[in-house]
Amino acid sequence: MIPEEILQTFREKTHFVVATHMHPDGDALGSLLGLIEILKQMDKKVFGLVEEPVPDFYRFFPQSAQLNTSRADLHDFLRAGGSDAAAVALDCGEIERLGSLQVALAAIKPLVVIDHHQTHQNYGDYRWIEPASSSTGEMIYEVCEALGQTPTLRCAFDLYVAIVSDTGSFRYECTGARTLEIAARLVGAGVNPQEVASHLYDNYKVARLKLMEMVLGTLRLHEENSIAFIHVTREMFAKSGALAEDAEGFIDYPRALAGVKVSAFLKEMPDDTISVSLRAKGACDVSEVAKRFGGGGHRNAAGCRFNGIGLEDVHNRLHRAISSALQGG
Amino acid sequence: MIPEEILQTFREKTHFVVATHMHPDGDALGSLLGLIEILKQMDKKVFGLVEEPVPDFYRFFPQSAQLNTSRADLHDFLRAGGSDAAAVALDCGEIERLGSLQVALAAIKPLVVIDHHQTHQNYGDYRWIEPASSSTGEMIYEVCEALGQTPTLRCAFDLYVAIVSDTGSFRYECTGARTLEIAARLVGAGVNPQEVASHLYDNYKVARLKLMEMVLGTLRLHEENSIAFIHVTREMFAKSGALAEDAEGFIDYPRALAGVKVSAFLKEMPDDTISVSLRAKGACDVSEVAKRFGGGGHRNAAGCRFNGIGLEDVHNRLHRAISSALQGG
Repeated sequence: MIPEEILQTFREKTHFVVATHMHPDGDALGSLLGLIEILKQMDKKVFGLVEEPVPDFYRFFPQSAQLNTSRADLHDFLRAGGSDAAAVALDCGEIERLGSLQVALAAIKPLVVIDHHQTHQNYGDYRWIEPASSSTGEMIYEVCEALGQTPTLRCAFDLYVAIVSDTGSFRYECTGARTLEIAARLVGAGVNPQEVASHLYDNYKVARLKLMEMVLGTLRLHEENSIAFIHVTREMFAKSGALAEDAEGFIDYPRALAGVKVSAFLKEMPDDTISVSLRAKGACDVSEVAKRFGGGGHRNAAGCRFNGIGLEDVHNRLHRAISSALQGG
Repeated sequence: MIPEEILQTFREKTHFVVATHMHPDGDALGSLLGLIEILKQMDKKVFGLVEEPVPDFYRFFPQSAQLNTSRADLHDFLRAGGSDAAAVALDCGEIERLGSLQVALAAIKPLVVIDHHQTHQNYGDYRWIEPASSSTGEMIYEVCEALGQTPTLRCAFDLYVAIVSDTGSFRYECTGARTLEIAARLVGAGVNPQEVASHLYDNYKVARLKLMEMVLGTLRLHEENSIAFIHVTREMFAKSGALAEDAEGFIDYPRALAGVKVSAFLKEMPDDTISVSLRAKGACDVSEVAKRFGGGGHRNAAGCRFNGIGLEDVHNRLHRAISSALQGG
């Protein structure tokens, strides 16, 4: 199921530039760092390219400081690698999500794309898109196995974080038997599940709790409590001292309400856009809702972004779209 | 590792009375129902004995209604079974936790005890105690395999709920590679992890979120954020429409703060007492703090209760006691 060209690229090339999407989450960073580790184990030269330094929250990844934002360093790396370089974009089915890294990667051929999001784009030279997979981390484990490598403890840790992040600790629909089987092997390789959970779930800033309090106060329910909205404003971020990353996971609170079929979390971002997370529990396909607004994702977890309109407008447009999706429209 | 006498008992006896502890949780009920299913698959007659009807929250177990509280029915069952009956006590290392079922089980020989709690008792005829196991559910899976049975979907569901309940969805220290391997097989047998998570975790009332918002607003931090207090008043319960049970788990929010070593949750109860939950992360023994005020518990999770004094007083007394415990006093 992994395209042979991809495995061949990993086997034959000597220099790799590995990147992931903007505002990386646990799966993006875990799969990125995990793949870097596998390639290094194969004696490859690897450049882990990121748009911005790794957010504080994710600095617990032992190798996070080695990820590099410098285009000058990248230039030197590629000059040394000559024609023997390949690029890899992880967890990033849409080229726009690479942000400014698009340009840097466009200069390298081939570009390998590995992602588990449902996408409709066709960027990259070799693509492995597996929407049935729980996470890009799970896919990187398969790559590791297909390349005949045994994950080091460091790699196992990275991939375990990736899988736990994107399955909500094995709670989401995407959790398959294979997901758990891989998790078992990673724990067998020495990963401590409690340590991972404590990094991901016991590592909150006070500002996060303050923000959570404000955001819970925005709860709005529609259609007999089947649709739940929460939002965060720039003012709340400023007042609480929290950053965008501190709002991660808040969507789980309205989602956890009995009776709620679809929940939406609207975030006013520093760049004046409104970023939206959508969650469903099977009653409709929220990736279809997201697509209407230029976004995408999976059946039960999707997102989109609005530009130039206010929170209330976004709320109303989404409310209409979700209602109609729930009615099978 | 499973004592041979236990497997032999399961193979040879024809009638089984299976029971678990008072106030059963997900692991108690899941392992109980799972074992019943396995024994029925082996054409055994089984009586699932419980002290009280299954709590509402756990009625999602398909077979929960078949558990029986009737001693008259038990009497008839045992009369039919003659000397070919055996009893099984699950998830219950201390005989006291069987409550009034002690008497009923004492009449049956042999009594098989299967549990994963560290115990200091030796009741029962054949005992399998495995403190390294995540859950009694995990142990019942091992029994199933050792008996050469393949778990039905129903059995797999019961055991999966048991494992998820007792590992906090694979987050606690007890989660081992074998735990995840078994979970993988249960999902392979058809269990839907999202469905299980949704029964256990997506069942919140709106009043709970409202209460959570209010309680988060009470956060107080001391000693450079190493001690965190939250509280709930009777007024907050009234205003939100939430019940005491809806506040369950709130202590996890201050606990999850980076830097917090001890967290305390003070609850004004309907009977005018103040109930306190204490959590630590290893830096001191909160059961010692609780004991000073007539309570008790474990090193990292304890509780106590105050009578006749107000929230502020309780806060101050606990603050002093926790400070001194953190200083090794």
